[in-house]
Amino acid sequence: MVAGHRYKPKRNERIVYISQYLVDRPSQLVNYQTFMDHLNCAKTSVSEDLSLIKLVFEQQRLGTIKTFPGASGGVVYYPIVHPEEQRQIGEKLMEMLSKGHRILQGNYIYLGDILQNPNIVDRIARLMASRYIYEQVDAVMTMESNGIGLATLVARYLDAKFIFARTGKTTSREATRSVEFVSGSYHKVGRMELEESQLEAKERVLIVDDFIRNGGTCQGMIDLVKAFEAKLVGVCVVGENPAPDIVRTLAFDSLVSINLAFNEESRQYELELALGSLFEKKSEPTID
Amino acid sequence: MVAGHRYKPKRNERIVYISQYLVDRPSQLVNYQTFMDHLNCAKTSVSEDLSLIKLVFEQQRLGTIKTFPGASGGVVYYPIVHPEEQRQIGEKLMEMLSKGHRILQGNYIYLGDILQNPNIVDRIARLMASRYIYEQVDAVMTMESNGIGLATLVARYLDAKFIFARTGKTTSREATRSVEFVSGSYHKVGRMELEESQLEAKERVLIVDDFIRNGGTCQGMIDLVKAFEAKLVGVCVVGENPAPDIVRTLAFDSLVSINLAFNEESRQYELELALGSLFEKKSEPTID
Repeated sequence: MVAGHRYKPKRNERIVYISQYLVDRPSQLVNYQTFMDHLNCAKTSVSEDLSLIKLVFEQQRLGTIKTFPGASGGVVYYPIVHPEEQRQIGEKLMEMLSKGHRILQGNYIYLGDILQNPNIVDRIARLMASRYIYEQVDAVMTMESNGIGLATLVARYLDAKFIFARTGKTTSREATRSVEFVSGSYHKVGRMELEESQLEAKERVLIVDDFIRNGGTCQGMIDLVKAFEAKLVGVCVVGENPAPDIVRTLAFDSLVSINLAFNEESRQYELELALGSLFEKKSEPTID
Repeated sequence: MVAGHRYKPKRNERIVYISQYLVDRPSQLVNYQTFMDHLNCAKTSVSEDLSLIKLVFEQQRLGTIKTFPGASGGVVYYPIVHPEEQRQIGEKLMEMLSKGHRILQGNYIYLGDILQNPNIVDRIARLMASRYIYEQVDAVMTMESNGIGLATLVARYLDAKFIFARTGKTTSREATRSVEFVSGSYHKVGRMELEESQLEAKERVLIVDDFIRNGGTCQGMIDLVKAFEAKLVGVCVVGENPAPDIVRTLAFDSLVSINLAFNEESRQYELELALGSLFEKKSEPTID
């Protein structure tokens, strides 16, 4: 490269680069200067490119872009899922749950094939992130192990750290804080812990998990958030199959509601599926 | 929308949409028809748009695009990280590791802050995926719990499922296969298991983990792959701190090599960091 003869990409090339750069960094503030330097262009060009990209993203329902003025300003891409697509993801989940052998021993519900598919988990994560995108989440928290993949992706879309509570069974080599919780699986009291370094007072925490049944695990995580004097933003799970009396004390959102209904004819339990409580709320975060 | 008057996006708008669509679906085959239908345009327009996008992606080192002809053909975006950026990611990791209190009791090395940052994990995952992108990986496998976030993202970039082995401590409600392994943490024999439904014979498996020390956990996972008559593609870890005699029997790639060196003056162990074995190999997968 010769000084004074730096390569100047054309507009088409700039907008491919800028849109890819933003999509790759969801919820992160990117300074205009980054683009001006890299694409060897003026601020007005970047502004014009961003206007076009914003237009296409909103028209095509790919999320939105917000620009912030000033020296410390820049642009942020928010990967908001359109309400209609949110509903499609919920329905896709119900469709998947209606197929295959789902009811395990002890009337547990099998979600393994869904939770090990990164494309489905990615869609679910984006939907969840959409609902909390303007809530300034600092940390996405889950309990080992089933929810970790999902929590990682939600955290990526929210530009937050992800942390997971461990059951007391594992030995941590660091200082921890722990709480007791009632394990839904065995109806007994367990202990879950989080390392001291993982969460700070006043940090804003979103709890994410795969499944809620009696709410004991989620209640434990809420207690952990309190033990760190952090702030709970919300609890969001993929599926709920609530025990009637226990969950009532817990506020949470779910994508799918799953009930076990006994079929008198076949003498077997069957799944009754419906869209979860998340869809009863306002369907889109406010764009201000 | 009125028939015959469908909205026809301009070229600028088409390329923003197409590039975003592809970046959002790494390693997945997308049919041209998807774009023709959505953007209300001819196949030649899609072809021209893809040529431009391919050019920009390769020029800007954002990965590559391959087109496959025929009725079942289409286009795939491979999120290949340029060798120079791969090295930068390795160096960034070394820089992070050189800061803070890293040496824990028992000379364990603290990676928590790195593994809970989704943006760093995303970069590491993309680097790892780059190295195996044309290896037709069906499943990315890890051991609970530390590697799960990373494995999820590697799987997403490779369009593979992600699965994790559990230690025998957890009670699975499904049929499992299990193997014994020598736990590096306690120098004792443990048992790890994988559910029958998670892996099939002949599937191609990439093992991913956060850290390798005596190789016992990775060897256990390799034994599990064999127990399922699946095919091992490779073993890739973030950090290696190998015990000299044990790891020698195990072939694996690492991003960072970490050694503990005793500083006679301060009477303390210190970290000696270097780029790992991954960087000794050919630096880029062949683009055919």
